[in-house]
Amino acid sequence: MDPARAIADLRELHRLTGGPGGARRVCWTGEWARARDFLTGRLEELPVTVERDGAGNLWALLQGDSDEIVAIGSHVDSVPAGGWLDGALGVFGALEALRSIADGGRPGRTVALVDWADEEGARFGRSLLGSSAFAGTLELGAVAGLADADGVTLPEAVAAHGVDFEAMASAGDGRRERLAAYLELHIEQGPVLEAEGLPCGAVLGTFGVERWRAVLTGRAGHAGSTPMDRRADAGVAAARGIVALQAVARRHGGVCTAGRADFDPGIVTAVPGRAEVLVDQRHLDTGGLAAMHTEAQQAFAHAAAEEGCDFTSEPIWRIDPVPFHAGLVDAAADACAAATGSPARRLPSGALHDASELARVCPAAMVFSSSVGGVSHAPAEDTAEAHLERALSAYGDLVHRVVATGVP
Amino acid sequence: MDPARAIADLRELHRLTGGPGGARRVCWTGEWARARDFLTGRLEELPVTVERDGAGNLWALLQGDSDEIVAIGSHVDSVPAGGWLDGALGVFGALEALRSIADGGRPGRTVALVDWADEEGARFGRSLLGSSAFAGTLELGAVAGLADADGVTLPEAVAAHGVDFEAMASAGDGRRERLAAYLELHIEQGPVLEAEGLPCGAVLGTFGVERWRAVLTGRAGHAGSTPMDRRADAGVAAARGIVALQAVARRHGGVCTAGRADFDPGIVTAVPGRAEVLVDQRHLDTGGLAAMHTEAQQAFAHAAAEEGCDFTSEPIWRIDPVPFHAGLVDAAADACAAATGSPARRLPSGALHDASELARVCPAAMVFSSSVGGVSHAPAEDTAEAHLERALSAYGDLVHRVVATGVP
Repeated sequence: MDPARAIADLRELHRLTGGPGGARRVCWTGEWARARDFLTGRLEELPVTVERDGAGNLWALLQGDSDEIVAIGSHVDSVPAGGWLDGALGVFGALEALRSIADGGRPGRTVALVDWADEEGARFGRSLLGSSAFAGTLELGAVAGLADADGVTLPEAVAAHGVDFEAMASAGDGRRERLAAYLELHIEQGPVLEAEGLPCGAVLGTFGVERWRAVLTGRAGHAGSTPMDRRADAGVAAARGIVALQAVARRHGGVCTAGRADFDPGIVTAVPGRAEVLVDQRHLDTGGLAAMHTEAQQAFAHAAAEEGCDFTSEPIWRIDPVPFHAGLVDAAADACAAATGSPARRLPSGALHDASELARVCPAAMVFSSSVGGVSHAPAEDTAEAHLERALSAYGDLVHRVVATGVP
Repeated sequence: MDPARAIADLRELHRLTGGPGGARRVCWTGEWARARDFLTGRLEELPVTVERDGAGNLWALLQGDSDEIVAIGSHVDSVPAGGWLDGALGVFGALEALRSIADGGRPGRTVALVDWADEEGARFGRSLLGSSAFAGTLELGAVAGLADADGVTLPEAVAAHGVDFEAMASAGDGRRERLAAYLELHIEQGPVLEAEGLPCGAVLGTFGVERWRAVLTGRAGHAGSTPMDRRADAGVAAARGIVALQAVARRHGGVCTAGRADFDPGIVTAVPGRAEVLVDQRHLDTGGLAAMHTEAQQAFAHAAAEEGCDFTSEPIWRIDPVPFHAGLVDAAADACAAATGSPARRLPSGALHDASELARVCPAAMVFSSSVGGVSHAPAEDTAEAHLERALSAYGDLVHRVVATGVP
């Protein structure tokens, strides 16, 4: 395992499909195909079988003594003006692990590098497309009508890259049941590891999400001629709710965010008669998420009542938490500790990953590299080089262990 | 004084220049000129001299024993889709008072009905245009460049109605010093009188205003991957400031409003890195206003610090409070008490009025009629008919007293 070689690959990929303006490997575009060509070229140097499944996911299989597959990978697609490591780190980290395993001769288990298609959903708004198709959780009817900004539909876009839309739902057939494990390396996209001076950490799972809109209805009025005791100020009610939301998150050890507030009529001379707040709540535990959801709604209802306003909530989206496989998380932690010489940090993932879909199919785990300033989905996204090396080493170590001895 | 005749005039005016879609007497338009023609027609029935001053304000002078003028009036211009009473009530209330005084023969003092031009500023954004020109506080340079949505400039628009823009600043010359008093009747545009079951009240003055933008700067982050203890959430800081702002207003007996909040990047998946809040603070007392201003800024600064954010404020606009003449306020209160049979309510005005400009020139006071639901600048604006009658009676009584005996 040579971390420097993986980093050199990543630099070359960024030279080809990115630059100072950031990565531009949006899935189902020419730049994305170019990134895949680069990957395919590197794979040709290895004794692997390269093929695409029905959802456009790229597989490179190194046959082992057993047909049981240890899948390793991530995604080369990016958001527009994205970071150089988001997704690509996991693919080229897996490539380097695959190289080192291939160097050792026929492995005990079959190893498959996977580059999942359209993890970001940057063009059509549906993330985890390829991995959910593989996992069997993609509902074709829910995405058939998606179109990009130019009116091109998702079925048209995938067809242009040789994918039969109707066949996507069966992308995992015949292979899903062969997976023994899935292991992914990814940049943290958050500030935790860097703040603690750690190069890498073991991921406990991905947060469940409750996303909803708080709607507060009061009574609009003239900012000058409506005395304070005659107001039903939806803006103040919203503000009280936002403050309370923070306390809910802290009480339960999750995260809660009010990302947007809209007051109506939204002018400086009017008491807001209506306010909407966009709320996002995440927790690694199903019970914790449900409790946060209930308490946040109660807090907004209480805030509304205090201001003489009404409260309703409108669901936007939700997903259950996905805890990773305990034995593999332990193995990932051991590998991180070995690579860094420090006790391993275990942390949840606030963002979803392809591993969230794979965890429905087989034991899964992830390693995170630290993230400079926690910056994500931006050209400035980075991991300090010394941290990158340790993270790649830890991931390679983890893959070697699981390929050699199976899931703990 | 016949309130029913004034109400009939107002209904006729609304038939001519308004309707179910609201009043449409935007200043410097044909509909406004039509409203003035209607007023002029009514004035022709009286022994008055009708003339326009250099700012397009319409004067109807009933000569008295003394050249000293008691000015009475308001404005016939409206916002688009405005209320039928806002401004018009004061003009036709003054017309009815003028009629009843003229019926009694030559008055002790000269009485002048004034219809101020462009109180609303609905087309060019500068309110109190005619009255500030008369008072000598209009800076021509500050309004010369104003243009409407079609690109017509204010100087062009006033010229189309026979007003020489350059001459507006001297509109009050030769008459300003003759004013003994200014008395205005207006709809409250707020909920206070109606909530207390009162037809009318005596106005203490118009609020001073501090209007500014609170800017909170934190650190944007991913809503999922940024733990609560690593956030500098500008949205939560803004919310804390908004809640504190309400307490500031209550502590000082003024009004404070956060009419708009903008979070940046303003998406559900991001911790806000920046937030702006539009703040409007009003108080009748200069010291009270200054204290509210200082404390609100301190509250926002404290809220920002609590969230690890920075705070700056950007001034938007300010005006000092304008207290009305104490003796005239007493007289207005006496007239209200006499008309209603109840102790008079004294209340501040949250909105500005032509009387705010006239108070710089001579003793001034106002009477408010109650306002159904506090609705203002909308077709639904109204005063219950029984309340209108009482308010018109009280105003007529006040005018008679001041014309007969002068300023107390």
